[in-house]
Amino acid sequence: MNTFDTEDFRKQAHLIIDFLADYYQNIEKFPVRSQVSPGYLGEILPDSAPHDPEPIEKILEDVRSNIIPGITHWQSPNFFAYFPSCGSTAGFLGEMLANGFNVVGFNWISSPAATELETIVMDWLGKMLQLPEAFLFSGGGGGVLQGTTCEAMLCTLVAARDRTLREQGMENFDKLVVYCSDQTHSAFKSSNFQLCPVQLELEILSDVQNGLIPLFLCVTIGTTPSTAVDPLATLSEVAKKYKLWVHVDAAYAGSACICPEFRHFLDGLENVNSFSMNAHNALIKSLSTYPEFLRNHASESNKVVDYKDWQIMLSRRFRALKLWFVLRSYGVEKLREFIRVHVEMAKYFEGLVAMDQRFEVVVPRLFAMVCFRVVCCGENDVNEINEKLLESVNQSGRIYVSHAVLDGVYVIRFAIGATLTDYSHVSAAWEVVQEHADALLA
Amino acid sequence: MNTFDTEDFRKQAHLIIDFLADYYQNIEKFPVRSQVSPGYLGEILPDSAPHDPEPIEKILEDVRSNIIPGITHWQSPNFFAYFPSCGSTAGFLGEMLANGFNVVGFNWISSPAATELETIVMDWLGKMLQLPEAFLFSGGGGGVLQGTTCEAMLCTLVAARDRTLREQGMENFDKLVVYCSDQTHSAFKSSNFQLCPVQLELEILSDVQNGLIPLFLCVTIGTTPSTAVDPLATLSEVAKKYKLWVHVDAAYAGSACICPEFRHFLDGLENVNSFSMNAHNALIKSLSTYPEFLRNHASESNKVVDYKDWQIMLSRRFRALKLWFVLRSYGVEKLREFIRVHVEMAKYFEGLVAMDQRFEVVVPRLFAMVCFRVVCCGENDVNEINEKLLESVNQSGRIYVSHAVLDGVYVIRFAIGATLTDYSHVSAAWEVVQEHADALLA
Repeated sequence: MNTFDTEDFRKQAHLIIDFLADYYQNIEKFPVRSQVSPGYLGEILPDSAPHDPEPIEKILEDVRSNIIPGITHWQSPNFFAYFPSCGSTAGFLGEMLANGFNVVGFNWISSPAATELETIVMDWLGKMLQLPEAFLFSGGGGGVLQGTTCEAMLCTLVAARDRTLREQGMENFDKLVVYCSDQTHSAFKSSNFQLCPVQLELEILSDVQNGLIPLFLCVTIGTTPSTAVDPLATLSEVAKKYKLWVHVDAAYAGSACICPEFRHFLDGLENVNSFSMNAHNALIKSLSTYPEFLRNHASESNKVVDYKDWQIMLSRRFRALKLWFVLRSYGVEKLREFIRVHVEMAKYFEGLVAMDQRFEVVVPRLFAMVCFRVVCCGENDVNEINEKLLESVNQSGRIYVSHAVLDGVYVIRFAIGATLTDYSHVSAAWEVVQEHADALLA
Repeated sequence: MNTFDTEDFRKQAHLIIDFLADYYQNIEKFPVRSQVSPGYLGEILPDSAPHDPEPIEKILEDVRSNIIPGITHWQSPNFFAYFPSCGSTAGFLGEMLANGFNVVGFNWISSPAATELETIVMDWLGKMLQLPEAFLFSGGGGGVLQGTTCEAMLCTLVAARDRTLREQGMENFDKLVVYCSDQTHSAFKSSNFQLCPVQLELEILSDVQNGLIPLFLCVTIGTTPSTAVDPLATLSEVAKKYKLWVHVDAAYAGSACICPEFRHFLDGLENVNSFSMNAHNALIKSLSTYPEFLRNHASESNKVVDYKDWQIMLSRRFRALKLWFVLRSYGVEKLREFIRVHVEMAKYFEGLVAMDQRFEVVVPRLFAMVCFRVVCCGENDVNEINEKLLESVNQSGRIYVSHAVLDGVYVIRFAIGATLTDYSHVSAAWEVVQEHADALLA
């Protein structure tokens, strides 16, 4: 049997492309948040794998009738929940190519182009962000495309821990302290929406007095609940004084900083050890594996990067192709424009909220996300009303938004970032919210 | 600006499909292992991202002339290095769909189908492997598609650690001991090619006597260097006695165990806590995050699986689509056949090696990989000759093989698994090896 025949591949892949193009064409017809009940799919699909092959047409029919109803449509222009994932044609094409070549680029020799293209586009990205020279390969640093922010966080924590334990001795393992705001990425759990430098220093001093060892400070540029920005410059000054490893988690707002008007949020980076996906030399020391079966001349020459040493996993895909496709297909200026349009639309939505006396914008909007809530609700518990409003809006399937709790205040997060979203969707979304508020407050 | 126009997408995606189909058609024309020198790409590409958009045709031309020469062709039928990654049309189509829907399925509500399809295909796979009922969702267990074996290993280690520290107290953190053979997956570093149960018990007893706490045993079914199989049944009996968490790493040979004739390698699984990607309840306890912005009714109902709690990362792709496509497109019987053909081809290669007096097969072949070496080399150092042979063969670009060192013996690993490989490639590969040996030994 042959699981790969070129002409078969060509035919079937074209079929899928048309299937997907049709899906995008019709995406607004589906409820944004899936309306299925838990366990729906188990009642439809057989409980074991088929013994014999099934034709692609039959599988696609199943996707259409059984899978799509269970999908929450992240690519819908009416998706405003979490942080939207913004797909693009170029990104999709880059992914397709990466899947097609299907190389495993754990070290340089296993596919040189995968590594080299990644080092090149990482420097491109670093320059777009105006990172200090020391963060670039050309300045002795370097970047890596991690799978997720969680992985980046874990890698830098391990690197920081090993650096400190090398200096202070392994026996201090249980004395290490990590500092971050209570709004940080959920990789951490620790009141304000910003981390306060004065309070940080007091904490550090008290910890040192108690025999603990300050290890790591996570500064967040654009928190998940409210896109708050920690004051990087002053925080990193404090951290430097006590020799903490400073990591900047700019998972959300980092990309906005390719626009000059947002770049100031990164001021202070020169005192920082790692930035989002940035890899420090110490990182390599902690994560390096070099079993015999991967030994090769290129690695031993020290002329190449082996990305397996920059991450948790050994295996890795040809990740850079996607980013390279996106950067080239759109160019820096268009990407900036893209971000600016999202921010402008959020500003527009903020204006709509402000004009309705029953609502308030809860925290000042910085980027493309607006935190708002109903405030006029008579005898009712305000948090409860907002929770009900969210559920009723989402249940309608017309838009999908999510929420956060800031200092005990339940807020609705309206995050703009889906590629297909334009002003008409934003206006319509606000009407949906108003309609449901009308019904709820009546 | 719009980064997504449906008709644009359709046109450009079809272009890429044809590009990839042509690539596969010509794949045997490229040297298998890339012939470029370190830094080749930096000399060609610009050192910053373009300011303005570039057309897809120009980018594809760059892929053709600059990227492909730097690719080591994992999909080539002449790729026999590491463990080949076997692509398939169905796998590619599944990936394309997953990329197209582009959902982030971290919890159930964020895309119910992504979670439910994963629980279903995980049970399908469990049944194909005849795992004990307790490993299936239907039996109170359950599985998850991790990104890589390294991640699976890390997750189970964390789960085992937390379980033991909950029972024994956090202060015992530095007394925990992990046991594995020195041939295990490189996630561990610790002689024989099998882990010996008698020796394991002696080690455990001596560690306990020294005040240490035995934590975790990793049993490997198909080691990376030589595909050795640890004796699971007896090892897990020993581990049970001392209450170790037993993890079975069947990264390589697990898939062969869907064939009844290989299933006996998994005997003893009923005494095991986790199997490759298998997730134990304790796993969820250790990895669970539940920040407010992800709170939702479905999760609180406890009726659903939130896969974010089964992995390191918060984010996750619609991973199950690919596996589902593969299982359905080929069916269980064809997949078994596929594995059997690879094993048969390896047996054939083993026969070819055995017929040439200058070579020996170093360890008995169990699956689709043959470890062999030159033994007749006169005055020369035998390891050195084999190392030279490997490099000369790989340099030719006609095939790509890798190596391992087993108890000080340098062996060439001939691993069959690329989808396009058939008997003609295996015969031709052996001729390449012989030719280079002729030249080297002359």
